[in-house]
Amino acid sequence: MQKLIECVPNFSEGRRVAVIQKIASAARKIRGVEVLDVEWDRSHNRSLITIVGAPEPVFRAVFATIKTATALIDMKKHKGEHPRIGATDVVPFVPVAGTTLKECVALANKLGRKIAKELKIPVYLYESAARKKTRVNLADVREGEYEGLLTEIRTNPERIPDYGPAKLHPTAGAVVVGARKYLVAFNVNLDTHDIAIAKKIASRIREKNGGLPKVKALGFKVEGYAQISMNLVDFEKTNFDEAYRAIEKEARKFKVGIKSSEIYGMVPLASVVKAIAATFKTKNFQADQVLEKRLYE
Amino acid sequence: MQKLIECVPNFSEGRRVAVIQKIASAARKIRGVEVLDVEWDRSHNRSLITIVGAPEPVFRAVFATIKTATALIDMKKHKGEHPRIGATDVVPFVPVAGTTLKECVALANKLGRKIAKELKIPVYLYESAARKKTRVNLADVREGEYEGLLTEIRTNPERIPDYGPAKLHPTAGAVVVGARKYLVAFNVNLDTHDIAIAKKIASRIREKNGGLPKVKALGFKVEGYAQISMNLVDFEKTNFDEAYRAIEKEARKFKVGIKSSEIYGMVPLASVVKAIAATFKTKNFQADQVLEKRLYE
Repeated sequence: MQKLIECVPNFSEGRRVAVIQKIASAARKIRGVEVLDVEWDRSHNRSLITIVGAPEPVFRAVFATIKTATALIDMKKHKGEHPRIGATDVVPFVPVAGTTLKECVALANKLGRKIAKELKIPVYLYESAARKKTRVNLADVREGEYEGLLTEIRTNPERIPDYGPAKLHPTAGAVVVGARKYLVAFNVNLDTHDIAIAKKIASRIREKNGGLPKVKALGFKVEGYAQISMNLVDFEKTNFDEAYRAIEKEARKFKVGIKSSEIYGMVPLASVVKAIAATFKTKNFQADQVLEKRLYE
Repeated sequence: MQKLIECVPNFSEGRRVAVIQKIASAARKIRGVEVLDVEWDRSHNRSLITIVGAPEPVFRAVFATIKTATALIDMKKHKGEHPRIGATDVVPFVPVAGTTLKECVALANKLGRKIAKELKIPVYLYESAARKKTRVNLADVREGEYEGLLTEIRTNPERIPDYGPAKLHPTAGAVVVGARKYLVAFNVNLDTHDIAIAKKIASRIREKNGGLPKVKALGFKVEGYAQISMNLVDFEKTNFDEAYRAIEKEARKFKVGIKSSEIYGMVPLASVVKAIAATFKTKNFQADQVLEKRLYE
């Protein structure tokens, strides 16, 4: 089975399209990776590039994008609505197939060392790669943003980076590197206009309130209907089919049915296969049985 | 979207492994195809090679295997339990993704012409490519086998081939070429030892008795439990999730539950995605959202 990871580096450039394309090109030049998506937002002045492939080529492609962004983006001139501390702002490694979170943590560390050594940029490790509790949440690491960190990194021992100098790179700032599980975005629309029901169900199923493990959920009104919008942050713990059934059960208590659901964005084949296996009690159904999977191996 | 077809040529050789490997190698040499599987059976003295890719390379790979088999297999010496009329016995083209049955019928005709012209072997068209009702079923086309067809093809106007000479090739016999939909093999095991229930449900759900379209079903006893074994010959008409729910509903009438199910062999991503969309009412869920699919395109 081919090892497959995803990496979605975020860059502080969402206006100069030529710069964004140069950064993406740096990744595309590496054999063995696919650049699945390049997105940017003018008001956030921010872009993100989705790179998928085996760990080694993805690592090389990501470093190439960071090196390019370092040369082309000047944080002293950067303005945007979205919080950020560096030209390359956040770099999460995500296991997709045949790999573990642990391997992605190791990659995050390897990348941190390389950025520090070759580009002289300070690196913070976050989420599963974090070495301090205070660095698990990205928002905490980005506290004060580029402008605040300019002084803080030198004066506050709490802000000393995990790799590299205790001093921001003059134009590139700092980089946050980490590892996390694949996030599946899943929404369920109820057959009611009563948003209160969606909010109640969301509150019952979210992990924080003792609901389903690794599920974040909120109730909304979307196109007039009550929607439970979820982030499944570890589909091996709670997959979308399990969330669906839990919501179906709760909704029944309000005598409400499910109108539709929505898998938002990309989903790993493993999540789809797991949903099939659980729902139809299929013995040993595996991703390898999906014909298309055999074509890229 | 990449066009994807499958072709599974069957050869009358299941004992000389070196010959089988040479035939498979001929396909592997063609760029743009994957040889997913090579299987053989000594007592049937027969092998089959599963080739997947875009239509043009698959066509070339299949012709290369047929040419090789023609050079290496002598039907005058062939003995085996399985019915057969030629060194290359049957060649079905199957649409997998982004292609239609109609395109596969056109490929079958193109291959038939090429076999007749370049290899001087008579060709019969079967299943969806058949031009006569009497040639839809493979068993009818193979009536009398190689030995019987030696005379029949010359004396019986009913047996005149669709392409090529009305005379068997001295060593390669004749070839049956055709097109059919992808077949999904799906079994459902009931939570009962009573095989009569499986037979009753199978009889109710099969198309022949007015049940689900394009479903063939039989009741068996497997490992002590009642099993409904199905061939879903057109998953766009009846997919495995629909068959599962129909069986679940029928079983309830006997107060019996479903113990497990089994997707046997390979299944196209389109079938899996369709099952997810139907079961979870997902709006617009598409194969393109499955991350791995993007890697081979």
